[in-house]
Amino acid sequence: MSIVTDPAAASGGGPAAHGRLRAWAYLSRVAEAPCAALLAFIERDHGGDPVAAAAAVRSRTALPDAVASATRARYATDVSQRDLTLIGSLGGRLVTRDSDEWPLLRTQQFGLPDVTPDGSPPVALWTVGTLDLARLETRAVAIVGTRAASGYGEHVTAELAGDLAAQEYVVVSGAAYGVDGAAHRAALGVGGKTVAILACGVDRAYPAGHARLLRAIAENGAVLSEYPPGVVPGRHRFLARNRLVAGLSDATVVVEAGRRSGALNTAGWAERMNRYLLAVPGPVTSAASAGCHMLLRQDRANLAVDAEDVMEVAGPFGALGAAPSAGPAPRPTDGLTAVQLAVHDGLPARGARSSADISAEAGVGLDETMAALAVLELGGLAFRSDEGWALARAVGRAPRPG
Amino acid sequence: MSIVTDPAAASGGGPAAHGRLRAWAYLSRVAEAPCAALLAFIERDHGGDPVAAAAAVRSRTALPDAVASATRARYATDVSQRDLTLIGSLGGRLVTRDSDEWPLLRTQQFGLPDVTPDGSPPVALWTVGTLDLARLETRAVAIVGTRAASGYGEHVTAELAGDLAAQEYVVVSGAAYGVDGAAHRAALGVGGKTVAILACGVDRAYPAGHARLLRAIAENGAVLSEYPPGVVPGRHRFLARNRLVAGLSDATVVVEAGRRSGALNTAGWAERMNRYLLAVPGPVTSAASAGCHMLLRQDRANLAVDAEDVMEVAGPFGALGAAPSAGPAPRPTDGLTAVQLAVHDGLPARGARSSADISAEAGVGLDETMAALAVLELGGLAFRSDEGWALARAVGRAPRPG
Repeated sequence: MSIVTDPAAASGGGPAAHGRLRAWAYLSRVAEAPCAALLAFIERDHGGDPVAAAAAVRSRTALPDAVASATRARYATDVSQRDLTLIGSLGGRLVTRDSDEWPLLRTQQFGLPDVTPDGSPPVALWTVGTLDLARLETRAVAIVGTRAASGYGEHVTAELAGDLAAQEYVVVSGAAYGVDGAAHRAALGVGGKTVAILACGVDRAYPAGHARLLRAIAENGAVLSEYPPGVVPGRHRFLARNRLVAGLSDATVVVEAGRRSGALNTAGWAERMNRYLLAVPGPVTSAASAGCHMLLRQDRANLAVDAEDVMEVAGPFGALGAAPSAGPAPRPTDGLTAVQLAVHDGLPARGARSSADISAEAGVGLDETMAALAVLELGGLAFRSDEGWALARAVGRAPRPG
Repeated sequence: MSIVTDPAAASGGGPAAHGRLRAWAYLSRVAEAPCAALLAFIERDHGGDPVAAAAAVRSRTALPDAVASATRARYATDVSQRDLTLIGSLGGRLVTRDSDEWPLLRTQQFGLPDVTPDGSPPVALWTVGTLDLARLETRAVAIVGTRAASGYGEHVTAELAGDLAAQEYVVVSGAAYGVDGAAHRAALGVGGKTVAILACGVDRAYPAGHARLLRAIAENGAVLSEYPPGVVPGRHRFLARNRLVAGLSDATVVVEAGRRSGALNTAGWAERMNRYLLAVPGPVTSAASAGCHMLLRQDRANLAVDAEDVMEVAGPFGALGAAPSAGPAPRPTDGLTAVQLAVHDGLPARGARSSADISAEAGVGLDETMAALAVLELGGLAFRSDEGWALARAVGRAPRPG
């Protein structure tokens, strides 16, 4: 897509800018999104000019078959001014390619016309909220999962989303019950930013039980949709919405998903768009983790146990880089050679033993045993008593079964 | 190693065979196991003849430095007859390379002298039990994990071990508390075979609280050790024992392991010996699963949620082959085209709607909408009523949020 950098156009200042905005609004409704054919028509046939493209659609002029077909049912109805007025009355806006905040880098990495629904970028984003959508371009992580989240799933979601939001990541999700809602709430809870992407117009609270949550998200982030106001949710719109959740984020984390969860659809979009995909493991006895385990078993997702695992890959250059995870703590005997270790093991758990007995027990020659005992004594691991050699108190514990 | 196939030698029949058996018994105690140098001495310097090798060690004749050093502390003490008498009094036997039941294929795949303890095969296996150790060559799976198993870990262990044992797999483990014990018990519980490998002599019940369990394992499988009777456990013996658990099995499954669990040492052996390694995921909130998640995150282990995941890789040719796991169940709408799906979504959740309204709602031309409705009607997904088109009752559910 060509980008109009005219500030007037971006801000909706002059009549020309308003004309472009109305054209985008018309185009965002005239075909069911996503619609690769319409985008190609705007870009290739009309050089990215929405006004010319909208006029051609409205007048049925020189339309490719796919565009004619996709716009046939709705071309005659232009409610663009009504839609813009409505979004304005909600305190919202229509974000388009003309806007400075258009998440260009992310939308440039869509472009999958050959799947169903097609994976093309949105025509525009109907948005209510305070967040500059350009923020999605730097640190945005989608956290998704089943509506039927377990207590475990909600807990892990909250930990992950809270930690990521506290680290300036925008937490993206779909506002559904279960994992989605827990992710949004946790981000809000730490004063972070979160974005809800809907499968219906942003004037609708979907699900209804999340009306208050959606208002809070708009106040501290954004609620957005590629569908104009008034559009109702439908199954293919959920699938298309999932593509936006994955596509507008740098990484997608599936916290809990049954084998048929819609979250696996989002995961599929993340894969097809070359976004990072992570999955959180859970009890193998939990059906809510079966989809995550499938993703992991098939090597489609990286395993995530915490926010650090996500930050290692997502964000600018992977925000953490290749930070090593915490290894096991050192043990007092870690630096010993095999012979020294054998001699150490030859020391009795209680009491003391002669060096000759230790030598026989350890299967190490007497001279080597004496040398090893000297090293152990220096290291504070053994000491010489009247009865012979003994374990130093600090390590005088039972052997650790392997 | 050369294999003596003389049945008399294998059965301990004649005086020559008994002489060989005593020589193996002497060699199994004279150096601390594992001892790559001693094995090489028997094999290369003495053509696999234990009698000649034992005589040379005893008389200090032409010993390589490493062998002289490894045997210096114990060469003068020959208690081989006492050891053989003792194992016999326990109803046990010394299994050697001369025995028909020696698990040759498995021990041939040891041979890692450059690690600590070295990864060489055992000199011999002191065994109490009814199981022919050759059974380890076909279907043997090690199930290991932390002693501090959670209720979840014990449950999953029991499911896995029970299912594998019921499928004729020998369940191998280390008889420790926690995962090991649960694995042995579950195998016994289904009338299956299980093998406990100890880090001490098989005359010792270690841990003491598993004395009764060890007796049951011997009656329905085998308790074995490379250490002669009377040898006490020690840290390096646990590490060496772990090598036998991994090495004598076709696959190792880590059910639960903390970041420092000895089970991770067993996992390391399985990797180094090119055995299959699997790990069971668990709650990310559980420290007992942290080691498993580390193995999975580092792509060192395959993910296992059940016995089928194990059987896919372990056993002859992978007992299950590449059996696909159960995918999602089909939905009535799965075969629909994108347009048909959009029209289907355009049907109202309740009541009926005109085809023109459906066309506008779906963003699909009227003619295509009519064609799609006909297909939906044929498929039993929609029906025509007096008020218009409606969803068929069977699928008249709320849209599934993705």
